[in-house]
Amino acid sequence: MPMLPLIDEKEANAEVRAVFDDIKTSRNTDWINNFWRALANHPPTLKRTWESLKEVMMPGALDPLTKELIYLAVSVSNGCQYCTASHGAAAKRLGMSAEMLGELIAVVGMANETNRLADGYRVPVDERFENLF
Amino acid sequence: MPMLPLIDEKEANAEVRAVFDDIKTSRNTDWINNFWRALANHPPTLKRTWESLKEVMMPGALDPLTKELIYLAVSVSNGCQYCTASHGAAAKRLGMSAEMLGELIAVVGMANETNRLADGYRVPVDERFENLF
Amino acid sequence: MPMLPLIDEKEANAEVRAVFDDIKTSRNTDWINNFWRALANHPPTLKRTWESLKEVMMPGALDPLTKELIYLAVSVSNGCQYCTASHGAAAKRLGMSAEMLGELIAVVGMANETNRLADGYRVPVDERFENLF
Amino acid sequence: MPMLPLIDEKEANAEVRAVFDDIKTSRNTDWINNFWRALANHPPTLKRTWESLKEVMMPGALDPLTKELIYLAVSVSNGCQYCTASHGAAAKRLGMSAEMLGELIAVVGMANETNRLADGYRVPVDERFENLF
Amino acid sequence: MPMLPLIDEKEANAEVRAVFDDIKTSRNTDWINNFWRALANHPPTLKRTWESLKEVMMPGALDPLTKELIYLAVSVSNGCQYCTASHGAAAKRLGMSAEMLGELIAVVGMANETNRLADGYRVPVDERFENLF
Amino acid sequence: MPMLPLIDEKEANAEVRAVFDDIKTSRNTDWINNFWRALANHPPTLKRTWESLKEVMMPGALDPLTKELIYLAVSVSNGCQYCTASHGAAAKRLGMSAEMLGELIAVVGMANETNRLADGYRVPVDERFENLF
Repeated sequence: MPMLPLIDEKEANAEVRAVFDDIKTSRNTDWINNFWRALANHPPTLKRTWESLKEVMMPGALDPLTKELIYLAVSVSNGCQYCTASHGAAAKRLGMSAEMLGELIAVVGMANETNRLADGYRVPVDERFENLF
Repeated sequence: MPMLPLIDEKEANAEVRAVFDDIKTSRNTDWINNFWRALANHPPTLKRTWESLKEVMMPGALDPLTKELIYLAVSVSNGCQYCTASHGAAAKRLGMSAEMLGELIAVVGMANETNRLADGYRVPVDERFENLF
Repeated sequence: MPMLPLIDEKEANAEVRAVFDDIKTSRNTDWINNFWRALANHPPTLKRTWESLKEVMMPGALDPLTKELIYLAVSVSNGCQYCTASHGAAAKRLGMSAEMLGELIAVVGMANETNRLADGYRVPVDERFENLF
Repeated sequence: MPMLPLIDEKEANAEVRAVFDDIKTSRNTDWINNFWRALANHPPTLKRTWESLKEVMMPGALDPLTKELIYLAVSVSNGCQYCTASHGAAAKRLGMSAEMLGELIAVVGMANETNRLADGYRVPVDERFENLF
Repeated sequence: MPMLPLIDEKEANAEVRAVFDDIKTSRNTDWINNFWRALANHPPTLKRTWESLKEVMMPGALDPLTKELIYLAVSVSNGCQYCTASHGAAAKRLGMSAEMLGELIAVVGMANETNRLADGYRVPVDERFENLF
Repeated sequence: MPMLPLIDEKEANAEVRAVFDDIKTSRNTDWINNFWRALANHPPTLKRTWESLKEVMMPGALDPLTKELIYLAVSVSNGCQYCTASHGAAAKRLGMSAEMLGELIAVVGMANETNRLADGYRVPVDERFENLF
């Protein structure tokens, strides 16, 4: 059960509806998923989050699928069930296969393992790794 | 300061040296970074971690750079300083530019933000997101 | 399903019942929520946790609502479903409105985003930020 | 050492300088802290983050000090050193005393403890805690 | 709902079946729990994870129950529901009593509390704690 | 640099000194480590934390070394540098060898890996794992 009711398009005010319309247009769908319906309880957060997401996820030096894979990997690593499910679906729409998902989860697992090995041994950063760029 | 002394190649026993040699050969380098020198305090962990890493990171449905970007993203998200520095360097060797790093960090930031928004509103997973494959 | 059965007031031993009675008196309620019923499986943890909580949450330099908002924010940030629900309810009893909840979740989201940006860039602490008091 | 060089105001391009100027005006200071100098390596992230932060932290249903205390609490809970130092300083400017900081850290500690108790016992959410608003 | 279907023994290919057989033999059971059935979607991860687990959890300087208690404690601390349930069951099989579970959860709670107190005060490591071995 | 000055025994008030004296007596040492000197800035937190720790860590169904290993494992898993160093030292005093530390870190690593594999596949809890006690 959500903390606040999921806002339906019909009950949405003009500010919320404008964002919902943009989501539907941008994604070429007629459907709004629960995340945005929850955020609609606080319209400024809805608007800011949607606009930030559009900006961050647009094609750049990284292509959209790579960005979505990174998003999914972080969501898995954080144990966020909703985000794992929704960004899993988004990555699949952009071309992620079951095989790619299997490899992604394996990398997330290894990263979490070695992150803790590095923390457990308190490994000092090598000088050669400083000043990356 | 590490929890246990960093093992130098010269003091390494045969089991450790075999792993160190494989690291140097696989990476075409003559240098062993601190992570492996710390793990060498527990040779079975050194050997298992190195072999797992080689297997997980080899080209598959995802290419090596994409895997390394995912690894780096998780390390940033977990706040692991050593891993952020070392996998940042690894990703750069595989072709990550400063622009790509900037975009990667932005995606990691957004994912952490929306993960917590989803948790805060306790958003239920949409039925359409179930049964991904 | 909980790891251990939720202890009912009727089956509680004297030590547990004393804590349950104090919870009901302090909160002016006749109801014990599941968290305390689970902790009752280990009476020393029940007693210590309840007493610590009473001490930490009593009015001080910070008022009870502010403390409860901080508690809720941390629970959201940790992805703890139970604590998000229970401390959401507690904050509401102390005066948190839906608008305040919306702003709180937005701040938690931003903090998680910028925490990871700071970790990703490995930003060194400015000298001016040291020696706070 | 940061992953990318901290951008100095003198070397900043027009887009970065505009944000730096707005930070200085908004905060009534002549100084840019390292976080923004790091983000300046990726101007869209600098601009978006600064504008989001201004929006999220402005007075609303929660006053600026309460928002800053929540920000600090999350940063402490996430173990983000930079953010703990910088938002500690920000909260102090807005009126946080050493006593308030002591109480805030105590609440963060208790929340982390009971979050894990709830997770460890796998406590089911009470029906009364659903449908908060 | 899992991200990918749980693989049944009957539909498993030879590689997966070999691991399933080894799990059943090693654990003296005729049953495969959902974790392995999920991992069977990516056979290399199934095989590597099972072999790593066998190696890490075998008796050494730490006995199997102590290792399993540590595993459970980390799973609780990470808020991983599945792992808390499955490693709780595994620890019970090795001799963990309800009293031991109560104490374990209490230690996990305290550790999470003091971890954040140390982070909140940004406590510098004492020189005497360096060079542990 | 700590957020607040480390309190020296000589400047401590009576309440703080009583706790410091009890720490020295209980641990049979003449030395107070930085954690307690930081907490002394907020005497109620100092007193409550010390007394909680004494209670939680005393011999029970789990022996003191096992409790300390669990404490250390959680600290490593949380990436808390101070606590990893201080509880590493505490565990060593109680008998932890370098070999045991190596195995502990390996278990922490594996647990973090499989926690994320379970989260990534969104594995449902098996019915047999419910109703543990």
